[in-house]
Formats: sequence, structure tokens, C-alpha cells
Amino acid sequence: MEVTRQNYKDSLKTVYSAIEEADFLAIDGEFSGISDGPNVSALTNGLDTPEERYTKLKKHSMDFLLFQFGLCTFTYDQTNSKYIIKPFNFYVFPKPFNRTSPDLKFICQSSSIDFLASQGFDFNKVFCNGIPYLNQEEEAQLREQTEERRNQHANGIGTQSFISPSSKGPAHVPQEHKEYINRVIGKVEALFTDSVKTLDLEPCTGFQRKLIYQTLNWKFPKGLHVETVETEKERYIQVSKVDDEERKRREQQKQEREQEELNDAVGFSRVIHAISKSGKLVVGHNMLLDVMHTIHQFYCPLPEDLQDFKEVTMCVFPRLLDTKLMASTQPFKELITNTSLAELEKRVKEGPFKSPQVETAAGFHSYNTAQEQLHEAGYDAYITGLCFISMANYLGSFLTPPKPYISARSKLIDPFFNKLFLMRIIDIPYLNLTGPDLQPKRDHVLYVTFPKEWKTSDLYQLFSAFGNIQVSWIDDMSAFVSLSQTDQVQIAMNTSRYAESYRIQTYAEYIKGRLQDKDKVDHTPKSWGEDGWMKPSFTPATSAGFGYPRGLRKRSISPVQGELGAGEPPITDGWSNYSYPDSTGSKKMKTDDKSGQANAEAIESKTSEGWLKTADASDSAGSSPIPDEDSPEGNDTEGTITWQQAPTVQGRKGQKNKKKSKETESTTSLFEVPEVW
Amino acid sequence: MEVTRQNYKDSLKTVYSAIEEADFLAIDGEFSGISDGPNVSALTNGLDTPEERYTKLKKHSMDFLLFQFGLCTFTYDQTNSKYIIKPFNFYVFPKPFNRTSPDLKFICQSSSIDFLASQGFDFNKVFCNGIPYLNQEEEAQLREQTEERRNQHANGIGTQSFISPSSKGPAHVPQEHKEYINRVIGKVEALFTDSVKTLDLEPCTGFQRKLIYQTLNWKFPKGLHVETVETEKERYIQVSKVDDEERKRREQQKQEREQEELNDAVGFSRVIHAISKSGKLVVGHNMLLDVMHTIHQFYCPLPEDLQDFKEVTMCVFPRLLDTKLMASTQPFKELITNTSLAELEKRVKEGPFKSPQVETAAGFHSYNTAQEQLHEAGYDAYITGLCFISMANYLGSFLTPPKPYISARSKLIDPFFNKLFLMRIIDIPYLNLTGPDLQPKRDHVLYVTFPKEWKTSDLYQLFSAFGNIQVSWIDDMSAFVSLSQTDQVQIAMNTSRYAESYRIQTYAEYIKGRLQDKDKVDHTPKSWGEDGWMKPSFTPATSAGFGYPRGLRKRSISPVQGELGAGEPPITDGWSNYSYPDSTGSKKMKTDDKSGQANAEAIESKTSEGWLKTADASDSAGSSPIPDEDSPEGNDTEGTITWQQAPTVQGRKGQKNKKKSKETESTTSLFEVPEVW
Repeated sequence: MEVTRQNYKDSLKTVYSAIEEADFLAIDGEFSGISDGPNVSALTNGLDTPEERYTKLKKHSMDFLLFQFGLCTFTYDQTNSKYIIKPFNFYVFPKPFNRTSPDLKFICQSSSIDFLASQGFDFNKVFCNGIPYLNQEEEAQLREQTEERRNQHANGIGTQSFISPSSKGPAHVPQEHKEYINRVIGKVEALFTDSVKTLDLEPCTGFQRKLIYQTLNWKFPKGLHVETVETEKERYIQVSKVDDEERKRREQQKQEREQEELNDAVGFSRVIHAISKSGKLVVGHNMLLDVMHTIHQFYCPLPEDLQDFKEVTMCVFPRLLDTKLMASTQPFKELITNTSLAELEKRVKEGPFKSPQVETAAGFHSYNTAQEQLHEAGYDAYITGLCFISMANYLGSFLTPPKPYISARSKLIDPFFNKLFLMRIIDIPYLNLTGPDLQPKRDHVLYVTFPKEWKTSDLYQLFSAFGNIQVSWIDDMSAFVSLSQTDQVQIAMNTSRYAESYRIQTYAEYIKGRLQDKDKVDHTPKSWGEDGWMKPSFTPATSAGFGYPRGLRKRSISPVQGELGAGEPPITDGWSNYSYPDSTGSKKMKTDDKSGQANAEAIESKTSEGWLKTADASDSAGSSPIPDEDSPEGNDTEGTITWQQAPTVQGRKGQKNKKKSKETESTTSLFEVPEVW
Repeated sequence: MEVTRQNYKDSLKTVYSAIEEADFLAIDGEFSGISDGPNVSALTNGLDTPEERYTKLKKHSMDFLLFQFGLCTFTYDQTNSKYIIKPFNFYVFPKPFNRTSPDLKFICQSSSIDFLASQGFDFNKVFCNGIPYLNQEEEAQLREQTEERRNQHANGIGTQSFISPSSKGPAHVPQEHKEYINRVIGKVEALFTDSVKTLDLEPCTGFQRKLIYQTLNWKFPKGLHVETVETEKERYIQVSKVDDEERKRREQQKQEREQEELNDAVGFSRVIHAISKSGKLVVGHNMLLDVMHTIHQFYCPLPEDLQDFKEVTMCVFPRLLDTKLMASTQPFKELITNTSLAELEKRVKEGPFKSPQVETAAGFHSYNTAQEQLHEAGYDAYITGLCFISMANYLGSFLTPPKPYISARSKLIDPFFNKLFLMRIIDIPYLNLTGPDLQPKRDHVLYVTFPKEWKTSDLYQLFSAFGNIQVSWIDDMSAFVSLSQTDQVQIAMNTSRYAESYRIQTYAEYIKGRLQDKDKVDHTPKSWGEDGWMKPSFTPATSAGFGYPRGLRKRSISPVQGELGAGEPPITDGWSNYSYPDSTGSKKMKTDDKSGQANAEAIESKTSEGWLKTADASDSAGSSPIPDEDSPEGNDTEGTITWQQAPTVQGRKGQKNKKKSKETESTTSLFEVPEVW
């Protein structure tokens, strides 16, 4: 269903009830651009910390407009074993509510606009018929203004700035308006003796209207109702003879009208409020930017601090699931080589996945996945939901006995909750909304500064003695170089001691330096790179109020784990209540306890199955504002499942980042460039 | 004629010939917004200097997109005494030319977008079908890139960043691509023995393409032509067997193709180049922003300095005429109370103006002024041209004998050349492109700072002893206050000596302070206000190379004139070769020599007929790059005209600026709020 300003009010009930009855919701947003600073590949450093990434996205992506919001509700029909879907496609535009409301500016990126245009995006629907919205602060301000105006009006005075210094008594009418105002007074006096009840004054300027209000309120404190009537073309004052009761009734009516106008101004934000209040699982694909934009536009300006962002997010979306993360995680990672939405959608149509039975509810536009309508937000939300269902149901095949249908409330999908995919970070695959983020040890990483002219090839040459390296560019004159073996770091450092053209620091030294530089002027030539580094990194966030306190240690990288976990018994059974179906041969899951292994291998494990461990279910439920006690198929956990940990075969060692190359195409399957970025 | 990316190339000849044959051109632009900083009323201070105004507009308006450009050509058909018009409506969008071309970001202001939407503006035409463009620098860069690529290709090497450190000889093929590259080599070797001439390789990644290019260039330096073919969906490499001659021919073809693609990328800028080269009179209404945007988008980033901007403008548009300025000037000022385009267009349909005979050329959309299509750029350009014709022809009625038709080359309109209307500046009505700007004396102006809480009423109260004042807000905590009489300035200063909550400076002191502060950190709380004041103001620009050297003195405000004019005889006959038609009674024009009068009156005269005096015709012609010696009705100047100077009756004294008032409507007729702002 397409929802614009025209049918928004009529559709609201339909939207509310669709959300209310749904088992889960899928969302997607389309934006007017992605980055107003560096291009995306320069913006996203492979060794960003989550804090840095958040800061960069906040700084360079939030001035774009989310102008199309897709919502698809999925409701399971148990009798017929199929999902009933209701897809909505909301066009959103910050049409100014009135002359005093904020006149929002937003950026458009020509490549993004051109891309959407090539997909047949209808910009007129956005700009001409987009649903307005207000964030909570703006809404509060507007309510306050309305309240204030009401009070002022009740006191018979206009807006402060219109009061002449000599006023308080009669309005100060400038000489040139005196004749006009006297004429109005004459007409109103005549109205009292007339049989007509209402007098429409001729349209006049805002200043004249103010004078009329002031004068009439002072001259005729009783018996009159004065109101500005606004038509499409003009505004004029209507003066009516009323008794006290009538006057009150009219005031009442006016207030109700104002209230409705106010609700209209809050507009699309009400849909987000409804999603939020429902507490339903909200599924998205690579959804970090969607979530950030949604909060930014419809709730509040994004907080400075990542930790605060996480808290706000959990208030707005108590349960999130990112299908890109899910598809990049065991057991799906092995089956899915390309996790872009379009490719994922194709992949889950084939075995071992099964396409779910889906029926579009009556009165809704029925999408056909054979005719792709990618990048229409409603369609993208729809296929995101389909991908989620197929993947969730696949998890059911590991149960004993296997189950063909896995609900959105099933504990089987708990491990994927509230973790948002982080694009192109080598060793931190997701942002953990309900706890501290992963803290990979970056012992094998060097921070290298060098002349502007250097290219990736120069770095390869410089480190040619150290085997395969991985280069993550920071800016023109610096990059991170990851060695394959940590024990070579010291050798590299020693070698560089007398170098003049370049400088090498360990990652730890680098971070320490950044912390010390924090208050100094930064020397980095590109200003966009600064912010990402201004904050202390790797400071473990306090886990108070969040779940997964033990899970943190659990999810930490092997070598670190030993240290952090000291004092508490290691928990190794995060996934141990899963099992493979008998046909494939059940194996007891290998635990993640490989502390003694070489760091090079640790990197591998970080990027694959090593990272997505969850704490036990009680922790998880505690962190969810809406505990799902009424899971209809609550016996999901009865089956015994053991995860097989496949050996990591796809190394990242062969991959080389090419700086500024015009046509670089990443060769990694896990962190590939998805369709939107 | 609507011109989009679809029909742009086919229309270009039509556009060129329309410009070529025209007597004059009218233009108009539609933008995605006006100010990305303060709102317009806060942006435009009534006492801005031209430098300040330019700096503000440059800073806060240039990040918007000019996305619709209207051009209407007017050609006079002498035989039938009517104008033939050709209106064009160009949709413009910076579609990235290729992946390496600049990915332009532009701002949209929701109020502007909403306004255009309400006028039925078609955003899809802009974003989906807008004509691309490049400014001259981008064009030069692209040509350079193309050249470089050609040379590299000729040398058999790819883009630098793809060369492995060990290369120069054979390409360094990473292990994982070796098999693939070897397969390609095998296919190419087979091609040599095959009867087929051409081999299409399967689509591959950009990196693989580079490897193929490098490998084939090294392995088969002769006899092969290798080319990337790009279809809608994919790119693949085509390898052809060729002899040397064929190879050269193909290279030639490729170069021609590249050249054409380059021209396509320059796109809409070519229309502006044609307008520029034609040297024709370009008419616009309130056209400063149109001119700034046009230069900024299609020529070069705007210079820092106003003087440089003037020079660039005279290069791009050698002859400009602003109908808003014309309508605000004698003899039109007396006849035209509202100079907004829509109102002006209505006004000049009535006497004493005469609507010109106009016919739309065959094949062009015929506009009907009865059905307004305001804010379609082509329509606005069209009616701007109509207004110009009516006003110009009205000037002919003053000739003896009267002439009904005045050409765009007539000397009668010379006084209006190259002066662009300045919105809402009290005492400097226009930006003088071909000479120094007016330098009104601001002896009666005070600079007042005060607490944030103050409103206009507080200022009125403070200065209540000094009669009528005029307040021009600078920011929350400062404003200019113009007293009606200069001799009261000292009294006001004395009174304020011991004040604690506020501070008063004379305008001269204020300017001096700004100059001294120039290098210090500015204390003004609002950063958007700063820039406007950072530059030395009122430094007379050198008039070298510009006309009107004596006219400057002439156009100065009366009290100043005596001083400036000293040493040279005053020229009082700037308009004296004009006369009223006999019917209204011819009077000798009053000269502007009122040096002895009170400053209060001087202000009045500044805002009315005092300011638009020109030097004699020879000066004027000297400043115009294209002297109009071949004026077909060159005897315009034969008639004797005397201007009647009407007494200034419309005072500005009653007007009060209201700070932050929600519905302020200016009451002055000269500086009214026009439709766009």
C-alpha cells in the first residue's frame, strides 16, 4: 500500500492494526544520499572501532533525508501454514507545518539520486505528497507554542514582538493604520446592532491582523469571538457575536482543531511510535543506517556517544534483527556467498532453504519477486522478511524432530537479536546493542605514516619480507597494515627505526597517542578523518543495565578471552543446545578456547564463527523490554542441537586493498560491497 | 520547449540559432533552496554593504541546486511589428558522468521544495531526466583524465595503482587470478589461428580487466585491439585481431567517441557558453541569485571577492538588465507599486504601458499569461521579457516624436545596464557590476548591543526621545538603529555612556572595530553572521578599467556629493536628454544637488530617485564589452527629454522592523518581499 500525505490519515488505522496483529515487522529506508564527506570506501576503515564508525556515520550521513520508509508486516496463519503480509510504502517529506515550524534542509547526493532515478523512483510522490513528521522535541515545541498562543489569546494580547512600548492598555496603532483600524471598529460596532451574527473582514496583512486582535480584545472584552480564517488563497478575520457559552464552545472547537493539526504535523512519526510501542521484532537488512536515520528523523537528534545511541535504540526498537548479519553467520555463512539483499533473496529460494508460503492481504499491492522492484522500500522490506523466514525456518531443520516453521518468538533466533551488521570492519562484524562491543586484539596491526605519493604497492614493497599483509587506508598519508603474524611486529618496528620517509607505530602506541592528542590540535590533513579518532577507543562500556555480561567475555577473541574471563568459569555452551540433523552426522561443538594459537588464526576465527556467541537465554530475555513468555511454540528449546564448527577455509590473506583504484571490487565474501553502498 | 537529457542533443541546434537570431534573451532559474543558514529575513540586513551581501549569498545560497533554467529568446519582427519568442525550459541535474567524476552533493530546503511542489513542479524531470553539466574546471579535468588514460593505454599500462611493485615487465597476477588469466591468454592465442576476427571475453571484475589489459599488452604488443565494451547490464572485454592500420582506425574511432561523451558531459553548460558568447542583452527579474548560481554551476566556483565576482560576471554576461531594478526606478517607480514579477506582469498590461505584440515561434509551447504558470523557469523568463519590453517601450513615449518600439540596443535603456537589484538594502538599491558601488554615508546609524532578551520594542523605548527610528537586526544581541536626524547621534551616544545593559557605537566606530577585529576571534555568537563582517567594508574599489568614474560621484548621496565631487564640475544632466510627452507638461529636471538638506531627507532621496543616475553615454558604452553602434533606430537620442522629479511622498518612517515576528509583512513598496524570497 502506497501511503502519501493524501491517504495518510485514512490509512493510519490499517497501519496500526497491521502492526498489532503481526508476528514480526520488516523495515527498509531509502535515503537522499549516503555520505556528505568522503566516499563510502574512504569513510569506512576496516579497522574502525564501533565508536568511530558510529561517529563517522552520524557526522556524514544524517543530513540526508530518509524519504521512503518501507514496512512489511508478517502474520502467521497457523491453520493454513502461511504468512499473511501487508506491505506499506510510506513517502516521507518534512513539509513545514506552518511559517514558524523548522524549515529543514537536507542534502542530496547526485549519485544516490541518479541511482534511485534509474530504479524508477518517483520523486514527485516524495516532494509533492510526502507525509510530514516531527521528532519528539519538535512535537513538544509545537505543542508548547500552541499552548502559549492559546494563553496569550486568552489574555487578549498578541505575540510579544507586536506590542508597542507604550502598550498594555490600548494597542499602539501606527498613524498609517489608524484609519483602517477605525473603519474595522466601526464595522464591529455595527455588527452589535445588526441582525447578522458574523462579520468577515477583508484580507489584510499580518501586522494589521495583530492590530485588529489587540484593538478588539481591548475595546470589546466580552461578547465577541475573533478568529483568523485561512483559505487556500487568503487569510481574513472573522468576528462573531457570541454569548459566553458560545465563546467557550468555539474556543473548545478551535482547540480540538489545533490538536488535530498538531497530530497531522507529527505525521509519519506516529507510525514509528506504533512500531516502537508494539515491541515486535523488527527485521532489516544491513540496517544500521536505517535505524540511525529513523531515530534521527522521527525521535531525536542522535546522541554523541555510541553507548547513548544504543540505549536510545533499545527504547525505540526493543528487538532488532539484521538479516545481513544473520546471513554472514554460521550456519548460513557456509551456504550464502553473497549477502547483498538481492542475492540473498535469490539464494534462499534454493535448497537447503525453503521459500515460505506467503499471501498478500486483501487490498494490498502484491509484489512479485520474479519482477524485481528493488530499492522500493516496501519491496525491500518485504523480501527482507522473506529472507528472515527462510533462514529462521532453516534453523528448525536442526531440531530433533525437525520443525518446518520457526516463529519470530522462537529462542532459536535469539542469538541474532540486537546485533547490527557493521560494514567492512575486518574483525568486528556487528554492533552489539545490548552490551559492550567485541574488542579484538590488534597486536598484529601497525600504524604507518608516509608521504602523500605512496600507494598500496609501496606498502606491499615495504612489508614484502613479512608475507601477506592487509592494508586499511586511513587517509592520504597513513594506513593500518595488518601482518599475518604477530611475532613479526617487533621485527618490522626494528627495521623502521632509522627510516626517514615513513614511520611505524604499533596499534597500541597509536591508540595511546590518539588519546593523548585528544585535546591537542589534530595533525591529520583530512578533517573528516579526525572525528573518528577523537574518542578513547576500546574503553569497555559499563554493562550495567544490559544483558550478556558473561557473553561479552564469551564473545571476546580467543587470546583475550583468557585474561578477561579470569575469575569466572568459561562458558562454552552458548551454542551447545543446538544439534545438526542426524543425516549430516551430529558432532559436539568445538569451543572457542584456542588461547594458545597464533594470532593469525585468531583473526580468522574472529571473522567467521568465532564471534556470534550469546549468553544464556535468561540474560537475553532480561535485556528485552518485552519478554516473549507467550511463545506459541515454546518447546523450540526441547530439541538438542550441536553446532558444527567448520574449519575456516576462506582466508582473507589473498585480499589486497587498492587505494583510490577506480574499479576496486572486494573479493571477500563476508564483507562484500552490498548494493546500496 | 522542454529540454531534458532525452532531447538535449537534438535541441542544441535550435537553442543555438534561437540565441543567434535574438534581439535579447530573458532568463530565470529555479533552485532547490535559498538559504542554508539563517532565514532570508535574518540573512538580509537592511544596512548590508554590497560586499557583505555578496559574501552572505555566496556562503548560504550556493550549495543549493539550480535545477531548472528558463531561457526565452525575443526577436523583433519589424515587418509585422511584433516579437517572435522561443521559450526553453531546461531541466538540469549533475548526473555523475562516470565513476570517477565528482559526486556532487546539493542541499534542498524543504520550504522551497514544498513551494515548488505546490506550483506543480515536476521533480522527476529534474532527477530522472535532468541534463548534466560541468563547470570549466571539471571539464578541463575530465579532458585531462581522458588524455592521460589514452597515453597510458598507448604505453600499455593501466592505472598506476594497479601496478604491482614488481611490475614494469609482465603484470603481477595474484595467485587466485592466475588460472583465470591463463585461460584468457589461451583464448587469445586461439584467436590468432581462428577465422573469427573478434573475441568477447566473459564479464569480469574491474581488477581482472586491468590484469587482462596489462597481460595482453605485454604478451601481444602488436596485432591486437583490446577494448572494454559497456552494455546496459555489464562490461566485458572485446579482443580483435587487427593490422596496424585497423588498429589506428579503431583508436581514432574510440577517441572520437570519447570526445562526444565528453561534450555530452559538459552538457547544459554549453547553452550558457552560447548565451555568453552571443554578447546579447540578458534580462532577468531580481536576478542576482540567478547570475550567481549560473556562474557557480556552469563556469567556476564563485570568487571570494566581490570585485572579482563582478569581473567574472561581465565575462559571462557582458550585458545584464534587472527588471526589478528597472521597475523600482524612475520613471517606473511612480507607476509600479509592487515590483514582484507576478504583479509587475499584471501592471504593465495596463496604461500607460502597452502590451507588446508577441507571437510564439512555430514548434514552441505557447504560454498564456492569463493562466499563470509562475515558477516554471521558462514562463518566468518569458514574462520577464514582456515586462522589459513594455517598460522599454514606455521610455519611447517620452521621445519627441514618441516612438512605440524601443529596441534592446537603444541608448534609452543604457542606464539600467549591469546593475543588479539588491534585496532589502535600505540605501544601496543595486549592485553596480561595471564600477564601484554606492557608498551611502551612514552618519545617522548607531550600532547597538544589548541582552539577548531585548526585542524591537525595547529599542523603540530606548530611543523614544529621538523620534522615529529604524531598526535593522544583526543577530540576537545587536542591531543597527537609524535615527531620523544625524545631529541626534551625539546626544544618543552621550546618554548611553553610563548604561550597563546595552552599548552604543556610531556606525563609523563599529566599522573601525570590525576592521581591527578582523584577525581576532570573533565574539558574535552566531557564526553565520560573522563572515559578512570579516572584510573591510566601504573601501572604494578601484575604478580602473570600469566606466562611470564620474557617475559614481553623481550617484552618491547628496551630503556626500559635495565632498566627493570637489575639484570637478558637477554633472547634472545625466537624464536631461529625456522629456515627458507634451501632454503631461514638460519640466526641466531638478538636479540632485541638495547638499544642505537634513540627513533625514537625504535618506529619503537615497531610496527613491536619487540613486540611478548614469554618466554620459560615451562612458556607458565604454564599459560595455559590446558597443551597440549598429543600433537600428540609432536616432533615439535625438529627441529631447526632461525627467520630472516627483517629490518623495512615501516615507519609510512609519515602517518598523519586527524581530522574529511570525508574520511580518513589509509595508514599503520599493523593498517589498518578492515572490521567491
